Amino acid sequence: MSASSLIPHLVADKVQQFVEEECIPSDALFRAQLGEGAQRWSTYPPIIDQLKARAKKLGLWNIFLSKTHYKEGAGFTNLEYGLIAEQLGKSLVASEVRLTFPPKAGNMEVLAKYGNDVQKREWLAPLLDGQIRSAFLMTERPVASSDATNISLTMRREGDEYVLNGSKWWSSGAGDPRCRVYIVMGKSNPTHQDPFKRQSVILVPAGTKGVTVKRMLSVYGYDDAPHGHAEIIFENARIPASNLVLGEGRGFEIIQGRLGPGRIHHCMRSLGAAEHALEWMITRVNDPSRSTFGKQLNEHGVIIEWIAKSRMEIDAARLIVLAAAHKIDTSDAKGALKEIAEAKVIVPQVSLAVIDRAVQSFGAAGVSQDTPLATMWAHQRTLRIADGPDEVHLQQMGRNENKRAKALQKKLEMQRNKAEALLRQHGIQAKMHL
Amino acid sequence: MSASSLIPHLVADKVQQFVEEECIPSDALFRAQLGEGAQRWSTYPPIIDQLKARAKKLGLWNIFLSKTHYKEGAGFTNLEYGLIAEQLGKSLVASEVRLTFPPKAGNMEVLAKYGNDVQKREWLAPLLDGQIRSAFLMTERPVASSDATNISLTMRREGDEYVLNGSKWWSSGAGDPRCRVYIVMGKSNPTHQDPFKRQSVILVPAGTKGVTVKRMLSVYGYDDAPHGHAEIIFENARIPASNLVLGEGRGFEIIQGRLGPGRIHHCMRSLGAAEHALEWMITRVNDPSRSTFGKQLNEHGVIIEWIAKSRMEIDAARLIVLAAAHKIDTSDAKGALKEIAEAKVIVPQVSLAVIDRAVQSFGAAGVSQDTPLATMWAHQRTLRIADGPDEVHLQQMGRNENKRAKALQKKLEMQRNKAEALLRQHGIQAKMHL
Amino acid sequence: MSASSLIPHLVADKVQQFVEEECIPSDALFRAQLGEGAQRWSTYPPIIDQLKARAKKLGLWNIFLSKTHYKEGAGFTNLEYGLIAEQLGKSLVASEVRLTFPPKAGNMEVLAKYGNDVQKREWLAPLLDGQIRSAFLMTERPVASSDATNISLTMRREGDEYVLNGSKWWSSGAGDPRCRVYIVMGKSNPTHQDPFKRQSVILVPAGTKGVTVKRMLSVYGYDDAPHGHAEIIFENARIPASNLVLGEGRGFEIIQGRLGPGRIHHCMRSLGAAEHALEWMITRVNDPSRSTFGKQLNEHGVIIEWIAKSRMEIDAARLIVLAAAHKIDTSDAKGALKEIAEAKVIVPQVSLAVIDRAVQSFGAAGVSQDTPLATMWAHQRTLRIADGPDEVHLQQMGRNENKRAKALQKKLEMQRNKAEALLRQHGIQAKMHL
Amino acid sequence: MSASSLIPHLVADKVQQFVEEECIPSDALFRAQLGEGAQRWSTYPPIIDQLKARAKKLGLWNIFLSKTHYKEGAGFTNLEYGLIAEQLGKSLVASEVRLTFPPKAGNMEVLAKYGNDVQKREWLAPLLDGQIRSAFLMTERPVASSDATNISLTMRREGDEYVLNGSKWWSSGAGDPRCRVYIVMGKSNPTHQDPFKRQSVILVPAGTKGVTVKRMLSVYGYDDAPHGHAEIIFENARIPASNLVLGEGRGFEIIQGRLGPGRIHHCMRSLGAAEHALEWMITRVNDPSRSTFGKQLNEHGVIIEWIAKSRMEIDAARLIVLAAAHKIDTSDAKGALKEIAEAKVIVPQVSLAVIDRAVQSFGAAGVSQDTPLATMWAHQRTLRIADGPDEVHLQQMGRNENKRAKALQKKLEMQRNKAEALLRQHGIQAKMHL
Repeated sequence: MSASSLIPHLVADKVQQFVEEECIPSDALFRAQLGEGAQRWSTYPPIIDQLKARAKKLGLWNIFLSKTHYKEGAGFTNLEYGLIAEQLGKSLVASEVRLTFPPKAGNMEVLAKYGNDVQKREWLAPLLDGQIRSAFLMTERPVASSDATNISLTMRREGDEYVLNGSKWWSSGAGDPRCRVYIVMGKSNPTHQDPFKRQSVILVPAGTKGVTVKRMLSVYGYDDAPHGHAEIIFENARIPASNLVLGEGRGFEIIQGRLGPGRIHHCMRSLGAAEHALEWMITRVNDPSRSTFGKQLNEHGVIIEWIAKSRMEIDAARLIVLAAAHKIDTSDAKGALKEIAEAKVIVPQVSLAVIDRAVQSFGAAGVSQDTPLATMWAHQRTLRIADGPDEVHLQQMGRNENKRAKALQKKLEMQRNKAEALLRQHGIQAKMHL
Repeated sequence: MSASSLIPHLVADKVQQFVEEECIPSDALFRAQLGEGAQRWSTYPPIIDQLKARAKKLGLWNIFLSKTHYKEGAGFTNLEYGLIAEQLGKSLVASEVRLTFPPKAGNMEVLAKYGNDVQKREWLAPLLDGQIRSAFLMTERPVASSDATNISLTMRREGDEYVLNGSKWWSSGAGDPRCRVYIVMGKSNPTHQDPFKRQSVILVPAGTKGVTVKRMLSVYGYDDAPHGHAEIIFENARIPASNLVLGEGRGFEIIQGRLGPGRIHHCMRSLGAAEHALEWMITRVNDPSRSTFGKQLNEHGVIIEWIAKSRMEIDAARLIVLAAAHKIDTSDAKGALKEIAEAKVIVPQVSLAVIDRAVQSFGAAGVSQDTPLATMWAHQRTLRIADGPDEVHLQQMGRNENKRAKALQKKLEMQRNKAEALLRQHGIQAKMHL
Repeated sequence: MSASSLIPHLVADKVQQFVEEECIPSDALFRAQLGEGAQRWSTYPPIIDQLKARAKKLGLWNIFLSKTHYKEGAGFTNLEYGLIAEQLGKSLVASEVRLTFPPKAGNMEVLAKYGNDVQKREWLAPLLDGQIRSAFLMTERPVASSDATNISLTMRREGDEYVLNGSKWWSSGAGDPRCRVYIVMGKSNPTHQDPFKRQSVILVPAGTKGVTVKRMLSVYGYDDAPHGHAEIIFENARIPASNLVLGEGRGFEIIQGRLGPGRIHHCMRSLGAAEHALEWMITRVNDPSRSTFGKQLNEHGVIIEWIAKSRMEIDAARLIVLAAAHKIDTSDAKGALKEIAEAKVIVPQVSLAVIDRAVQSFGAAGVSQDTPLATMWAHQRTLRIADGPDEVHLQQMGRNENKRAKALQKKLEMQRNKAEALLRQHGIQAKMHL
Repeated sequence: MSASSLIPHLVADKVQQFVEEECIPSDALFRAQLGEGAQRWSTYPPIIDQLKARAKKLGLWNIFLSKTHYKEGAGFTNLEYGLIAEQLGKSLVASEVRLTFPPKAGNMEVLAKYGNDVQKREWLAPLLDGQIRSAFLMTERPVASSDATNISLTMRREGDEYVLNGSKWWSSGAGDPRCRVYIVMGKSNPTHQDPFKRQSVILVPAGTKGVTVKRMLSVYGYDDAPHGHAEIIFENARIPASNLVLGEGRGFEIIQGRLGPGRIHHCMRSLGAAEHALEWMITRVNDPSRSTFGKQLNEHGVIIEWIAKSRMEIDAARLIVLAAAHKIDTSDAKGALKEIAEAKVIVPQVSLAVIDRAVQSFGAAGVSQDTPLATMWAHQRTLRIADGPDEVHLQQMGRNENKRAKALQKKLEMQRNKAEALLRQHGIQAKMHL
């Protein structure tokens, strides 16, 4: 059965059923199989492969590439896949199993869109098949990488090779024992006069000499094993020039093409997490054992207002994301710049607020390992930082909106002139003050 | 040219042009013609009639009744008309001229939907033609009327008449010298066992003996002349029983059918006001004469963030309203209960925030008569109260959402059981704690 | 009985009693005596003079000048007088009657502190006696006057006179028929190399030829009669050079000395307004006639939380203001720069939030003339703009706090070095990353 | 040198120096010595004992018991000690070393205040000396323990023993290998007619048969080793009746006496954490390597506003806590109920906001182990839950404030009557509407 033959809302229903009945119940086993200490980075929870097999059988494997832009795609638009992605956000393991998970989905998109045939054969095929994993290496600790022109890892051409020196961090997925390839952004042409043409992207096999995983980073105490977030050191690492993607100086082009649809997925999974948190909250406040001072929690007006606001905020945020997805579908990521930025900023704020209310409704249980809430919150918190902090997006949106100034000044000037003329016609000698 | 033959987005463009080029420039003259003191309630600014004539000529007259529910309608869906209504919110006079203005649009809907032929001939025709005005009398000062069962004005049947005693306030439009009819909700069947069948709606001609406009109310410092908000006293006012709308005890039915589409219009005009405020703000912060400490206002990051947030919040709120309108169109007002409530709560909050930022960017000018901002703000502030305060809507939404509790408890129970079974299968004796 | 012999907290009690039992009950009469239309600016409500006489009799007249800085003072510290000022904020008329009201209190401080003997005799004496009123003319419509170096009204010396040209607005108090003197800030030395020495302050008698009150400004629809806010035009107005205060180029010096204690009074009266709003809110939600859906308002958790937050926020804000007052008392206005700015920014936000909750708890009555709430809110809203908008104060506070950067970098560097040394001592080769 | 002979502000300075120069630099070593996995609960980082020795030498050991209420105290008032406690909040290890750390400080207070001589000799002396640790066992997973009458662990008297059955969780400190005694709240008199006299407190030696540490809980992803948060099971655990504290049925009395000063310490340490976060933030935004788009972070107005707001909010929150401490000192914990509740609610909100801004200014580093920020945030988040969630405190505060209703209604009634009388005197037949 081909996924592309499926009707979108039936797939969304099927995914929801798979997530709720198979993935969520597997989250505890996944955690148990991960274990403690160093083992978390050396083994791979077997439940993942079992669920992957189930997903393949259900025709839900690799359905994330949009039909609009990729021929390998399952045939869904960004909007349709957005609705599917939301379901995945409800389960820790569902993001793994699947189906799709940034940065890996984004990585596959990069290879599908920009890789040559050899690169696709070597890396994309096993990635799509789930045999290997990849990591995208962009951010660097010593510089402010939200401005990508600051990237400082050097790529020096020597004969048929590039020699890489520098470091990367927040290389998500690099902790996974199955991770085989790093997609690395470096500075290959540091003196090019256009600062956006100094960067290139190259494929670095894991285990290459001179490439060391230095340590794993934590997110509010969570190590996010097995994929994890690594700091990786490059010391004279030599990579065949044939591993270059698209061509020298085209790094920006590649990362920009990657951001649009990936952000839709991120946002929709984020809302899935918020929906799941709301489900937990409602369950909690209707638990008769949680009475205080003679009242069940659902009898408190403040709690009911939390539920109402959560419902309302999730619904509003979802519309924003779907509008952005639709804009990408009918235009492209560049044409949907404003809508994507709006979704990128609003969604994590909503999810964090909803999850935090859920935490509060659970009291101490909410911050502990006994609910999925604390883990979810920590993960969502990174979305206000990853791919550029809120503040950078707000400044860009604000400056773009502010470009209307000249036209608006002209319009208000016209209105003022007409108003004064009209007053004069009626014998009133007034002047509009502003 | 019939409005119903028009293509919606062309109408929206035409309305926008009419509002921006003719209505907004007339706002100052409208204010000047209103004058000061008692005269504000006795004369009617001639500019209104001139603009009405223009609107008729442009085919923009009375385009508010939806084609879905009214045969008199101009043929637009609620969603389409919503986009048109947004434009009207930008100008003080545009709401008057038009086209449509609650409570009058709502009043006409009541008559169109529930009035009998005689009533329609007597009142609806001249209302639609703009010759007379109407006012809806529901709220009462002495009781908490957001719970409409509290309404206490008595309607006692005596022969062919009803005798009305009591008082109403916030009778919007009753200050207008052209206001000829009050649509009055009263308690006709105080002992009916169903508290929702004790009320009736009756048409009361302005000037009826025993009906006195006691005083006009202000909104912050505005009197909203010429339509205004009146407190009206009923002392043994005798009204022909034939003026009853729909039938005794059917008051609730009437007011409920009236709320849905009216709220869409309110919300969209509110967003039109917010857009207009944003236009003023952008113009201000790009005014070179407004430099402080060596910087123009548009160079301040905080200001740019205000613009970005305003853009984002308006866009998100508009999607909420349009989604509610679409739900009414494809279902009905009852089916769109949740969506309408979400729009009702979110939109005024967004508009108030955007307008307040605009006020702040203007400094002292912003609170004065020199911009439309302070007036707009005061008007928007009433939307958090009118047709039920935010808190009532939030409690209802919260309680409705909370009805999912049983189903969710069952689902989480299922997931917990499956998770424990899975752990046991893998030899782990664990228990999910929650 | 001399006020200076009074014990501060007894005076505060006495002021509270006077405000609650005499001033608040006079507010309605004050409004009625003001009347409608043009009369609002030509007559002066007689109740004011009656209450002034009462205040004098009670020994509460002119108790605002601090004993720390003024010998004419009643002997209270800024902190003590702050507690008294809070009471005045509860009544519309109390601010008038008294006792003190910016800008008039500030004006008297200017004359007391910087005026020469002739000026004091001519203006300060009748001001202190309440026979005449004054207005401070600083802000100008065409420029961004929150940066006072932008002030553009010209003061050209010609022989024994200064010739004034330009305009001022928000000249508060200039509408009062008893207003006899304007304290005007203008640019006398436009080419002085120090931009803070280009301004002078001069006393302009109301009615001087070439000085015209052009119009009165409104604040959210309120005209604030009888004192009002005027726009005033200067066309070749000739003022005796002897009316110059302190000396040419010393304008900044004068306005700076004026701001500290005045802000304390503003803030404390603002909190008095908030307290009064809270009183109204509590009364409302305990009114049994306000039941909705079978519950009295005080049974709703959301309402109870509003009350709690209002209580908490007012208490916290009051401490901030009193701490600033104490700092002025033990140092001076300059030494209390940070504390005054904190109070200036926090207090109006708290008062606006509290009053807005009260408005919401009253529903439609809250926005009308039937409670003091809407008027209060409009007045408080101006405090976020007057004497510099919030944003200017926040940027200054932020930049001042940021001056600690070098010292903090040095401290964290020291801590990092020590930490690394300690790790090395224990055989751990680690490096602190940040 | 005796601590009690020290002058408070000199002690605060000395503590600050000790924390900044010795404790903070030891935090990294402390973490390294804790290690990974199971070892975290079995060893005890030696750096702690070294710093304890330093603290004793500096005369800073056990200075937390207030002179107002404890003769063992170091002689500081709650206000004075509050200022000292703030410093401790800046370092992970400083809270350990110290000096004082709830729940252990609170535990020592319980023993000092309510223990008999035998109990004091056996437990208090070695606790004060730092040889052993204790844990307070109150909260239970299966019930809503923020209402302490829900507590369900049973204490059945059998001869000279109590038999304990049930479970406790969030037993903070119970993970520490040196923890020797649990102070346990249980239900000893389940049928007592006064629900506040059914509970007793008993001292349970760690390792008692039938008492099992079942598992450790995490706070977000942190285990807070070595003290940790345990879930502990009681199965027929037999405790000598002589271990009962104060007497049967006096559990409430004990926990209430414990809360006041402990909350001051919590709040002040929380503000210490916020100050430390602000220091990190300022350092970050002045780091020249963090330029984006040609600007250093400290040149962004939004960042400067974050710094200003953080400064302002911390200052305001500190005043609230100190006012509460002063109220305890001059009255007692019961008399300071309102002030303590205000501090309890405001402080964590401020600290969380400040720390979150700091996280955001660091980007990805902020959520990781490379700054103290993420750990701090997670810890502060528990303060909105521990000792009763915000919502419970707000409801209590709101209800207490609402008790003024009757008096306020009477006052407003008096003002209304006087106002109407005054209007009548002046010939105006008006009626106040509210």
